[in-house]
Amino acid sequence: MHLIDRLIEQIIEKRNPTVVGLDTRLEYVPDHVVERCSGASPFEVAASAIFEFNKAIIDAVYEHIPAVKIQVAYYELYGPPGMEAFRLTAQYAKSKGLIVIGDIKRNDIGSTAEAYASAYLGETPLKNGRMPAFDLDFVTVNPYLGTDGVMPFIQACKEYNKGIFVLVKTSNPSSGEFQDLPVEGKRLYNKVAEKVVEWGKELMGTKGYSHIGAVIGATYPRQLEELRGEMPNTYFLIPGYGAQGGSVQDVMGGFDANGLGAVINASRSVICAYRRSPWKEKFSPKSFADAARAEVLHMKEEIEAALSHNGIKPW
Amino acid sequence: MHLIDRLIEQIIEKRNPTVVGLDTRLEYVPDHVVERCSGASPFEVAASAIFEFNKAIIDAVYEHIPAVKIQVAYYELYGPPGMEAFRLTAQYAKSKGLIVIGDIKRNDIGSTAEAYASAYLGETPLKNGRMPAFDLDFVTVNPYLGTDGVMPFIQACKEYNKGIFVLVKTSNPSSGEFQDLPVEGKRLYNKVAEKVVEWGKELMGTKGYSHIGAVIGATYPRQLEELRGEMPNTYFLIPGYGAQGGSVQDVMGGFDANGLGAVINASRSVICAYRRSPWKEKFSPKSFADAARAEVLHMKEEIEAALSHNGIKPW
Repeated sequence: MHLIDRLIEQIIEKRNPTVVGLDTRLEYVPDHVVERCSGASPFEVAASAIFEFNKAIIDAVYEHIPAVKIQVAYYELYGPPGMEAFRLTAQYAKSKGLIVIGDIKRNDIGSTAEAYASAYLGETPLKNGRMPAFDLDFVTVNPYLGTDGVMPFIQACKEYNKGIFVLVKTSNPSSGEFQDLPVEGKRLYNKVAEKVVEWGKELMGTKGYSHIGAVIGATYPRQLEELRGEMPNTYFLIPGYGAQGGSVQDVMGGFDANGLGAVINASRSVICAYRRSPWKEKFSPKSFADAARAEVLHMKEEIEAALSHNGIKPW
Repeated sequence: MHLIDRLIEQIIEKRNPTVVGLDTRLEYVPDHVVERCSGASPFEVAASAIFEFNKAIIDAVYEHIPAVKIQVAYYELYGPPGMEAFRLTAQYAKSKGLIVIGDIKRNDIGSTAEAYASAYLGETPLKNGRMPAFDLDFVTVNPYLGTDGVMPFIQACKEYNKGIFVLVKTSNPSSGEFQDLPVEGKRLYNKVAEKVVEWGKELMGTKGYSHIGAVIGATYPRQLEELRGEMPNTYFLIPGYGAQGGSVQDVMGGFDANGLGAVINASRSVICAYRRSPWKEKFSPKSFADAARAEVLHMKEEIEAALSHNGIKPW
């Protein structure tokens, strides 16, 4: 089955377009988890604690969400052992039937982009044969280098039934500095969006959406709505909900009339739920995974209600 | 001493602005090196072989070059063991007095960019204290997210005496697709260049150059010359020489009147010298490091001659 069709089926089956962002820093991991972990270096201990934390979160939420997004920066932070925790987390999430989005924002010239695509989506050539290194489902890609920096990822999508989300309009405060510059009567992000649509044409699934998606921040609701109109076959990965300030109403513009077309990422609001009101009053740090599930279910209800309120039949 | 001043001193002392790019794929490593290596998995064997290859190259060339550039994609390709080879290569190069440029092209929103900056330039916070993960000198950064995606790197530069090279005009064929778009009477890359100059102002060394540099491809000699004029205090990292098609004449526009202002990267032309004419006729695969040194010395002479020819006094 096409990966993008499987994502859509998972969203419908679980009645939830929420993606949990495993942006796990060591400081988020409660002490009782860290104390159980050992390793030959402080980074190995940290990486092991982060993987244990992630496993517990995945166990608590996998029945309620279609996918996880793993932000690789928070694993590179702990050196090679951190990257091993990244790999194991992706593998574990897949074993629970989840789709795995690697938030890696990689980009480079063609030959180097090919190495990234092989590492994260495809297989690594060895002296005898080939072997996958990280084997994710989707990755995020930065478009600044243009088509030949993106093509190797698209090639890997074709070959291995994978997908990408290309940065179009990012969620950060200064994203407009370059992305909003006026270019030939449009904005730069519109020009990037045009290319994403073009790239996506030959990689369509059977349910109206392409394997080549776009990242659009929840913090820019007007642009989200505008781009939904310009990119009818492009799935959106929407970060910026929750801790970054995007509300459930802000993300509504990303959905189509069937409640599809968008996955909403929530990271800190879910994985750190046990440290935040109202959950910290109900759950102790020992129950961090239960707090995460409670927040996921709360967010699911909130999105479902908002979709109905906006006249969109939720699945 | 300021890192950028140390780079300049190294260039003058070694009379060479060449940076050797350790873009080491397993297929470049001669069989006799691979056969000596062992490991618990094919990736561990590959990573160990790549590190052995890099060490031999570094041993052969470190007296003749100021810095190495390590392209992280070719290490991610071999999973976490590959990242360990990346870390060890950087460490070994530093132990030989070389400055290490990590070609990582990272970018993200503020909080995540901070994690990248800590991982590659600064230190990782642990439950008790802090520890460096990769500890490079310079890294490359993609500007698409604007100032708040770059600031954490600049903060790390200030705190740890490090530097960055921001992508301005990349060396690949389709770099113009977005970078050359007309924006307010200029090109997008000029707007990015303006920001790089602005970001660099508070991080000046004592020799006229800032710790915030720019990546400009050797394959665009006209833009290189134009940007040299617009960015008098910005050091340029110039990829695209050799295998990508940039000639020694093409990179001349990147230098100032003193033969400073630019480092020229050569990757495959050096590390794969033993497989290419004229060196493959003179060196066997067993002497791959000698072939690399021969190419480095040839390139050094070629650049020195070209600088003289262009009326630039080389150091």
